[in-house]
Amino acid sequence: MNFNTFMPVKVLSGDDVLSKNSAALKALGSRCLLVTGKHSAKLSGALQDFTNVLHKEGIAYTLFDGIAENPTAESCIAAGRAAAEFQADFIAGIGGGSALDAAKAAAVIAANPTMDEPALLNREWKVKPLPIVLVGTTSGTGSEVSAVSVLTWRDGRKRSVTHPDLYARVVFADPRYTYSMPKSVALSTGLDALCHAAEGFFTPACGDVQTVFAQKAIPMLWQGLRELAVCDEESHALSERMYYGALWAGLVLNATGTCFPHPFGYILTEDFGIPHGRACAVFLPALIRHTLRHAPDRANAFLDLIGCGFEEFESFVLTESGCADVRMTAEQVEEYAARWVNLKNFLNVPGGYTPELGKKLFTELFVK
Amino acid sequence: MNFNTFMPVKVLSGDDVLSKNSAALKALGSRCLLVTGKHSAKLSGALQDFTNVLHKEGIAYTLFDGIAENPTAESCIAAGRAAAEFQADFIAGIGGGSALDAAKAAAVIAANPTMDEPALLNREWKVKPLPIVLVGTTSGTGSEVSAVSVLTWRDGRKRSVTHPDLYARVVFADPRYTYSMPKSVALSTGLDALCHAAEGFFTPACGDVQTVFAQKAIPMLWQGLRELAVCDEESHALSERMYYGALWAGLVLNATGTCFPHPFGYILTEDFGIPHGRACAVFLPALIRHTLRHAPDRANAFLDLIGCGFEEFESFVLTESGCADVRMTAEQVEEYAARWVNLKNFLNVPGGYTPELGKKLFTELFVK
Repeated sequence: MNFNTFMPVKVLSGDDVLSKNSAALKALGSRCLLVTGKHSAKLSGALQDFTNVLHKEGIAYTLFDGIAENPTAESCIAAGRAAAEFQADFIAGIGGGSALDAAKAAAVIAANPTMDEPALLNREWKVKPLPIVLVGTTSGTGSEVSAVSVLTWRDGRKRSVTHPDLYARVVFADPRYTYSMPKSVALSTGLDALCHAAEGFFTPACGDVQTVFAQKAIPMLWQGLRELAVCDEESHALSERMYYGALWAGLVLNATGTCFPHPFGYILTEDFGIPHGRACAVFLPALIRHTLRHAPDRANAFLDLIGCGFEEFESFVLTESGCADVRMTAEQVEEYAARWVNLKNFLNVPGGYTPELGKKLFTELFVK
Repeated sequence: MNFNTFMPVKVLSGDDVLSKNSAALKALGSRCLLVTGKHSAKLSGALQDFTNVLHKEGIAYTLFDGIAENPTAESCIAAGRAAAEFQADFIAGIGGGSALDAAKAAAVIAANPTMDEPALLNREWKVKPLPIVLVGTTSGTGSEVSAVSVLTWRDGRKRSVTHPDLYARVVFADPRYTYSMPKSVALSTGLDALCHAAEGFFTPACGDVQTVFAQKAIPMLWQGLRELAVCDEESHALSERMYYGALWAGLVLNATGTCFPHPFGYILTEDFGIPHGRACAVFLPALIRHTLRHAPDRANAFLDLIGCGFEEFESFVLTESGCADVRMTAEQVEEYAARWVNLKNFLNVPGGYTPELGKKLFTELFVK
């Protein structure tokens, strides 16, 4: 048995959770920098609720709404310096995974405003980051309950920064903020969450505690995605299930990290513009097929959790990943494979994984 | 749905977990006060392992082994002042619930050595307590993963001090340290753990996250107790299940607190010398009977988890609680009932609970 656990975030959840718990913000200080993207924080109503609570508690704030999807380290540094200039006591990220990950990096820079990109990537901060508050508006990222910030760096590549200082102090988890997600975003972020739970489920770090989280996440997300794919409009009840399913998956991810679908997916996002969740999910059937050979008990436990056979799973995920038109040359695949030497995620795959296997998989899927 | 969660302790688990993770201690400083009772820390081998690791990491230490069962606030204050005098950087508690709870209080006093008993009870510390490390040697307390310290005060009464500062920084959870527990201790501490999971399961604060913890804890502990009661000697496999079962129950307790069995049990410990776990467990059947009326779905879910009917449950628990000879006068019961006005644990009971109901229960059980 393995009872390892560490997830120090305080999660407060439910409808109207922000207005019911405004004192939790006051405890963090009297000045706040809000980090958001252009749309979802506003559309979802989360930004309005948050600023209402700040007014109520007499907390001054300023808004940095310049965070794009797959946020650049550069934009996070700008946000962090804005926070330092504003003399913010804490940082609040409101939005999808991009805004939440950006808020974490901004909290580092706010306390260490002269840091540059390489220093951030290498986690070379001297001063403890500002306290972080997160409010999610999508059902996928898991960023709420992890110490990970995935950013896009100067070379156009996505890389993660992971450090215990990046855990949020408080998360306000209100499923109503996901109601305004377009269905396509709900599907992509839901696939991302499914990847977190599924990839995590197969890693060596998935102990007994993470296994019960995955056992909650996987059926909730899988059944939810199946319903989502065929419905005209997502019901609030379905949104709520997907939202909490994504948080369960986040609890897995927090402890386990990911296998190969995530780093492989980054390539499809960086070079082919495929949304993150879909880009990772296209590799999920290959992971399950691999584990059926190398960890059959665990793979069958996964299939039991989703309640269908491998073929049905593969067919659904490949369809919804929307990567059917991605085409690469053999040379491109060779270039990508050069990045996979000593890829630490390969150690997370039952039976191990290799650049050669990755090349074979990319060739099967994309070289036609 | 309710996804509330907050449990910031880092739990490292498994055989030899201390020697495999000694760097986690080094990160806390170079001077350590060890808080233990007289026996279990030594008998279990935990103290030896711990001091070996301290030697290896070059950490100086001193031992305070003056903690008795149902530790007094006075002894914790003495331990804390010893830590301050030693200029300890962190406090390590090694033992059963008594040593762990004492270590938490000592960490407060170490940072605030002039505090007295009333100030400790009222949580009036000015300086943040020293970091706390815990190593459990029994399968019951749940103290490893809670922010609670239950102490006995000058008036002979047990009362808890609960504060987020009392969460351990690191817990080393090695089930081997429970192998040396006498069977009677294993039964009593196992009953305590079952109470944590069962009482917690019925509280309003038992959300979705705590419910999955209780769903793990309750069958593990119940089946384990049934096996324990009839075996000649506890197998290591059974010890391990009881140990992790108690940690699952601790995760419930951490978020939920307890219902009436715990405060009622304190009375049997204070005035009749009944060990804590048995003293609480004798009230558990009454809690289940009460919930069968006021929250039947939840009560039946509990019975499903233990896999037997109420009568079988009641009979086993009343026998193992060992309280058959406890006798009180009607006047004594009246005096106890006077303590129960505004008892906050009553709010945790489905349908509520009253001093009148408590009097009736005590009379049925003990006035003969």
